[in-house]
Amino acid sequence: MGVIDEVGDAVQSIKEGDRVVLPFNISCGFCFNCHRGHTEACLTINPEEPHAAYGYAGMGPYQGGQAEFVLVPQADFNCLKLPGKPGDQWEDDFLLLSDVFPTAFHATELACVTAGKSVAVFGAGPVGLLSAYCSLLKGASEIYVVDSIPERLQKAGELGAIAVDFSKGDPVEQIFELRKKNKATQESRRPGEEKMKGVDCAIDAVGYQARDDSNPKKEKPTQILENCLKVVNPTGSIGIIGVYIAPDPGARGDAKQGIFPFPVAEFFDKGITMGSGQAPVKKYNEYLRDLIVSGRAKPSRIVSHHINIDEAPDAYDRFDQRIDGYTKVLIRFADKDAA
Amino acid sequence: MGVIDEVGDAVQSIKEGDRVVLPFNISCGFCFNCHRGHTEACLTINPEEPHAAYGYAGMGPYQGGQAEFVLVPQADFNCLKLPGKPGDQWEDDFLLLSDVFPTAFHATELACVTAGKSVAVFGAGPVGLLSAYCSLLKGASEIYVVDSIPERLQKAGELGAIAVDFSKGDPVEQIFELRKKNKATQESRRPGEEKMKGVDCAIDAVGYQARDDSNPKKEKPTQILENCLKVVNPTGSIGIIGVYIAPDPGARGDAKQGIFPFPVAEFFDKGITMGSGQAPVKKYNEYLRDLIVSGRAKPSRIVSHHINIDEAPDAYDRFDQRIDGYTKVLIRFADKDAA
Amino acid sequence: MGVIDEVGDAVQSIKEGDRVVLPFNISCGFCFNCHRGHTEACLTINPEEPHAAYGYAGMGPYQGGQAEFVLVPQADFNCLKLPGKPGDQWEDDFLLLSDVFPTAFHATELACVTAGKSVAVFGAGPVGLLSAYCSLLKGASEIYVVDSIPERLQKAGELGAIAVDFSKGDPVEQIFELRKKNKATQESRRPGEEKMKGVDCAIDAVGYQARDDSNPKKEKPTQILENCLKVVNPTGSIGIIGVYIAPDPGARGDAKQGIFPFPVAEFFDKGITMGSGQAPVKKYNEYLRDLIVSGRAKPSRIVSHHINIDEAPDAYDRFDQRIDGYTKVLIRFADKDAA
Amino acid sequence: MGVIDEVGDAVQSIKEGDRVVLPFNISCGFCFNCHRGHTEACLTINPEEPHAAYGYAGMGPYQGGQAEFVLVPQADFNCLKLPGKPGDQWEDDFLLLSDVFPTAFHATELACVTAGKSVAVFGAGPVGLLSAYCSLLKGASEIYVVDSIPERLQKAGELGAIAVDFSKGDPVEQIFELRKKNKATQESRRPGEEKMKGVDCAIDAVGYQARDDSNPKKEKPTQILENCLKVVNPTGSIGIIGVYIAPDPGARGDAKQGIFPFPVAEFFDKGITMGSGQAPVKKYNEYLRDLIVSGRAKPSRIVSHHINIDEAPDAYDRFDQRIDGYTKVLIRFADKDAA
Repeated sequence: MGVIDEVGDAVQSIKEGDRVVLPFNISCGFCFNCHRGHTEACLTINPEEPHAAYGYAGMGPYQGGQAEFVLVPQADFNCLKLPGKPGDQWEDDFLLLSDVFPTAFHATELACVTAGKSVAVFGAGPVGLLSAYCSLLKGASEIYVVDSIPERLQKAGELGAIAVDFSKGDPVEQIFELRKKNKATQESRRPGEEKMKGVDCAIDAVGYQARDDSNPKKEKPTQILENCLKVVNPTGSIGIIGVYIAPDPGARGDAKQGIFPFPVAEFFDKGITMGSGQAPVKKYNEYLRDLIVSGRAKPSRIVSHHINIDEAPDAYDRFDQRIDGYTKVLIRFADKDAA
Repeated sequence: MGVIDEVGDAVQSIKEGDRVVLPFNISCGFCFNCHRGHTEACLTINPEEPHAAYGYAGMGPYQGGQAEFVLVPQADFNCLKLPGKPGDQWEDDFLLLSDVFPTAFHATELACVTAGKSVAVFGAGPVGLLSAYCSLLKGASEIYVVDSIPERLQKAGELGAIAVDFSKGDPVEQIFELRKKNKATQESRRPGEEKMKGVDCAIDAVGYQARDDSNPKKEKPTQILENCLKVVNPTGSIGIIGVYIAPDPGARGDAKQGIFPFPVAEFFDKGITMGSGQAPVKKYNEYLRDLIVSGRAKPSRIVSHHINIDEAPDAYDRFDQRIDGYTKVLIRFADKDAA
Repeated sequence: MGVIDEVGDAVQSIKEGDRVVLPFNISCGFCFNCHRGHTEACLTINPEEPHAAYGYAGMGPYQGGQAEFVLVPQADFNCLKLPGKPGDQWEDDFLLLSDVFPTAFHATELACVTAGKSVAVFGAGPVGLLSAYCSLLKGASEIYVVDSIPERLQKAGELGAIAVDFSKGDPVEQIFELRKKNKATQESRRPGEEKMKGVDCAIDAVGYQARDDSNPKKEKPTQILENCLKVVNPTGSIGIIGVYIAPDPGARGDAKQGIFPFPVAEFFDKGITMGSGQAPVKKYNEYLRDLIVSGRAKPSRIVSHHINIDEAPDAYDRFDQRIDGYTKVLIRFADKDAA
Repeated sequence: MGVIDEVGDAVQSIKEGDRVVLPFNISCGFCFNCHRGHTEACLTINPEEPHAAYGYAGMGPYQGGQAEFVLVPQADFNCLKLPGKPGDQWEDDFLLLSDVFPTAFHATELACVTAGKSVAVFGAGPVGLLSAYCSLLKGASEIYVVDSIPERLQKAGELGAIAVDFSKGDPVEQIFELRKKNKATQESRRPGEEKMKGVDCAIDAVGYQARDDSNPKKEKPTQILENCLKVVNPTGSIGIIGVYIAPDPGARGDAKQGIFPFPVAEFFDKGITMGSGQAPVKKYNEYLRDLIVSGRAKPSRIVSHHINIDEAPDAYDRFDQRIDGYTKVLIRFADKDAA
C-alpha cells in the first residue's frame, strides 16, 4: 500500500541511554486534560481517578519512584531529556525537577507572583523554600518565609528571603510590622495605601498538618489558610500548594472529609483569587531545566543531606522530627551513583 | 507664566445634561488599585475601608443611589456616558449597568467562562440570571441554572439556560444526570472523560443566605460553596459573586465572623481556581453599554416589575418573600420618568 | 515481571467504528510545541519543517484529506470523537471542525476579540465569514465584514455582521463613516474618544492574494494589511489568518520571498499587537464541537453547495472565479454518504 | 445641604515636598484608554493625538522634562511617590523610572519574556541594556545582546547577557551558532527540536535608524525587524520598542511614510506574535520602584556619565557619535543636586 510506505513513524523521542528525569505525576498526553497542559489531571493513566503518580495512594497502580528502576507509561511524553550522563553534572538540581522545583514554581503561578510583587510563603520545607526561590527568580520585590525550625529559616535568609519565626509571635502581625518599619516602603506610600499593609501574594506550603501559631505543639489544620487570607492585600492572590486530603480517618468531625473552617467573608471582602492543586510538572520542567543548565537557577541549594538507600528509614524519621537540619534529603543507590 | 498659558486644562469628560449611569462602587481613578483596574478596591474614596459605595454599610459616607439626586465624587472618572436623553431608549438596560449586569459579567470572569465551556449557576436572582445570560453572550455551550422559585426558573429557561429545581432533589446530582443522559455529550466522550461528569465553571450567585437543598426552609450558608465544588470538574473554576459578610451578629459561632466549613481537600484534590468579590464595574461597563446599543444584549429581559418610589417598601417585601414573580424591580420617580 | 503485570496499558482513546474528525494539521502530542498546545508547530511529524498537514506542499509526506480514506499518524492524539455515526446529524458542521471553524476561531483569538469589542473582518470567504460568526459567538458588539462578492456580503449580513462592499469605496473609510453615523455610538463618546474612530480588532482573512481596493481587477498583496492597520484604534489588535507564503516564484522582487511593504511606523505609533499563523486546531475543537452539539453554533450556515467527488474540479473552478455563489463547498463520496 | 457636608473631598494624593518621578508620557487617568491601563494612549491630554509627552513633537503642548521645573497635568494621577528626599538615595535609579526602565520592562512584556525562556535583544543602548536586565529579572534563561560598540557589549556582559558583536558577522547566525555549540543545550534536545535553533523572544531596541549588519556605515531601517523574525523560533514573540516614525521627510519612497519591507510570509509561517509601541509607564513603575527600594534592581548600572545641564549639548553629541562610552548620561542641575 503506497500510502503507508510513504509515511514514516513518528520520531522516537527518547532513546536507550538518554539521561532523563520524570515528573512525579504520570500523564498520557492525549486526553482532554493533558492536551490542555493539565497533566496533573490525566484522565486515562489511572483507571480510578483523574490523576496518577508513582507509588502514591489513590494515584493508580504504579510502583514508587524511590527505586533503582521504574516502569514509565507513555515514556515519549513523560521523560524530560537532560544533558550529560546519569550521575553527571547538576545531578541534584535535575533530581529536583521531578517534583519540588516545578511544584514550587506552580505555587508561584497559582499565587500570581510577577516582577515587583511582595510575597509571603508559609512553610520552609523543600517546597516552601523553593517557592521563595522561584519568587525571586521571577523578580518578586520582597519575600517573607514563615517557619519555626532554625535551619530552615536560616536557609530562607541565605536564598534572599526575610525569615519570620512564628514561634516568636503571630507571623502575620510580624510581616505587617516589618513592612511598617521599612522606612523606604512607608515613604513610597500615598494616602490610602496604608490599607495595603500586607503582601500581594501568599503561598501555603504547609497544608492541613499545620501547627497552631500560638501553640506550636498543637496541630491546627486551618492555621495557614487563615494566615494567607490575613496577610494578602485586597485584590491579592493565594496559591495553595500544601496538601489537604480526604478522607482522613485519623481526624474528627468534618475534618475527616477534609472540610475545614474557612474565612469565606474575608475571602469575598478582599476580592481574593485562590488556586490550588498538584503541579502540571511538564508545563514547567523544560524551562526550569534550562535555568539550571544556564546557571541561573540552582535549586539544590536547599539540599541538606545525601544518603544511601539503606539510610532512608532513619532519614525519613529525622525529617519528620525536623531534627538535625534535615531540610531536603536526596537518596542514592551506592553502586550506581558512587562518584 | 508662559508655561501654564500654553497648556490647556484636561478635557472635561462629562457635561451638564449628559445622560450617564454610575457604578455602584465609587473610585478615585488614581490610587494603586484604581489605576490597575481594581476600582472595586479604591483606597482613597472611603477613609475607612479599601472600597466605597453609595448608601452601603461600611462603604463610606456616601448617600444611597435610590434617590432623585446623588452626589458623585470624582465624576469625570465615575460617570459612564450614555446615548440619548434621560428616560429615553434602553432606560431599563442602562440602569442595570450600575450593578447587576457588570456584576454578573464579573462572575463569569471569575469563573473563567469562555466559548464552548459548560457552566452551572447557583441562584436565579437578578445576578444569577444575568450570569447565565453573560455566559451565553461569551459563547458557553451549556448553562445550568439552579433555583426553586418557578418564575425564576422559567426566566432562566427563556434566556437559554437549562433550569434545575433544587426542591426536586440534589441539584448537583441532577446536573450530573442531565449530562449523563445527553446522548450527544456522552457519545463525544473518549475513555476516561467519564471522570469529568460535571461542568467547567461554577458560579455562586447566592452567598451565605443559601437554603439547605434538602430542606429549603432551613438556611445553610455553605450549601452553594459545597455545590460549586462538587459540580466543577477537575481543573475547573469557581466564581463567588454571592455575598458573604462579617461580622454577622445574628449568626452563631464561627459564622459570626464569616467563617464557614469549606471542603478544602476537594478544592485541592481537583486543582480548582476560585475568585470572588465585588465587580470592578468600570472594567466592563463601556463594553456592556455597547452591547446594549448594538442590540446584542438586552439585560432588561430579567426585569419583572416597574414601580414608583412610593411602592418601594412593598416591593422590597415581596422580593424578600420571593412572591408574585418579583425577579427584578426597577424604581422610578413619577414626575421625572413618566412615559 | 511483577511490576509490568500490575500496570495496564494506557486506555485506548479511539476505537474502530468511532465517528471522528481530524484537524488539518497533524501533530505528535509529545514534542515541546505540541505539549504546550502549539500543535500547529509540531516538531516531529514532519521531518523537514516544524508543522505538518495532509496533502499540503512543505507540510510532510502525508496524503490529502479529500479522499475516502486517510492515514492518520498518532491517531489517539489527533482524532476528535463525535457523537452519532458517520453521515449522521451535524455532518456538515462537524466537517468544518477540521479546518475553517477552528481557524476562524483562532483568528478571533489572535485579534483578541472579547465581549463588547468591535471587529472588522477583511474577506468573506469561509474563514472570513466564520471569523465574523465566532466574533458574535464571543459577544463582539459590532462586526464589519468587507468583501465585494454579493453572495458573500449577503451571507455576512445574515450571520449578523454589517456588510461593507469595497467596490463601493475605500472600506476603511466606509467603516469610519458607519461608526460616525451611528447616533448611539457617537453619543456614547466622551471628549477625546473621537480619536478612536475605528474598531478594537481587525482580522485579515484574505492574505497575499488580495485585490486592490481602488481597482479590484488588480492584485495588491498588502491591501489587507494596510487596511487592518488603518482600521484598528490605538491599543488595538490584529489577527492575520489569511495566508502569506514564500517562496512565491510567480511574484516579483521582494514578494518572491514573501517580503512586502508594511506600515511599521503606524504599527508602532498605535501600539498594536499582531498575531498570525495556522490554527492549533486541537486547542479549540472540543469546545467548538460542544457548541455544535448544544445547538449554540451552526457553522454550516456558510455552506453553499454539496457536491460529489467527481464534481470537484468544476466546483474548484467556480470557487476560484467567485461565481454562482460558491461560498463553501462540501465534497461527498456518493456511495458512502448517500442520504 | 446635608449630603455634601457629609462627604469629604477625595484624598489628596501628592503633597508639596514629596519626592516624585514622572512618566515621560502624560495621561488623564479617566479616559477609555487610561482607565484600561493604556496610559500611553491617553485620549484627552493632547488635543491632537491619542498620546502625550513632555517636550516631544506631536505629543501635545507640554514643555520638556530636561528642566529644573516642569508643569505636570493631572499630578495626582501622574506622580509616582518615592521614599526619601530629592537628591537622596537611589537618585539615579529613580530617574530611570521616568522612561528607560519601564520602557525596557514593557519590551519584555511585548516579547512575552517569562521564566526560563531565551531572549535576543537587538541594540545595547539604554533601553536595550535594560531590556536584557529586565529579562534577567523575570528569570529568562539565556539572553543575547547584539550591538557593535565595545563599551555597550561589555556592559551587556557585566549585566549577565551574552554579547554578540554584529560587526563580526551576521548576528542571527552567531546566535544560532552559540546555541548549537552549547553542549548542554544540545544534549537537552529531543529529536525535532533542532528546528528550534533560535530563541523564544526577540526585542527590537533599535528602530528604524538601524545599521546594515553587513555594512555598519550604511543605514538599513529594516535590519532589526528582519533579524527579529529570523532569530525567533516558531510560536515565538517579538517586542518592538525601538522607534519607527512617520512622516520622515529625510527618507525616500515608502520610508517617508514609515512603510518598510517586512517578511510577512515568515511572520505567518512561524506563527509569531508581535507587539509594539510606547510603554504604559504607570502600569509598571510602582513595581519597579519597589524592586529598586528592596535592592533587587539597580538599573543605574547602565549609567555611564553624570553631567551638569551646561554640558548637555556636548554630551548629546558624544552619545550620537557613540564615542567615549556614552552609554547613558544623567543630567543634573548644579545648584540643586550638588552633593
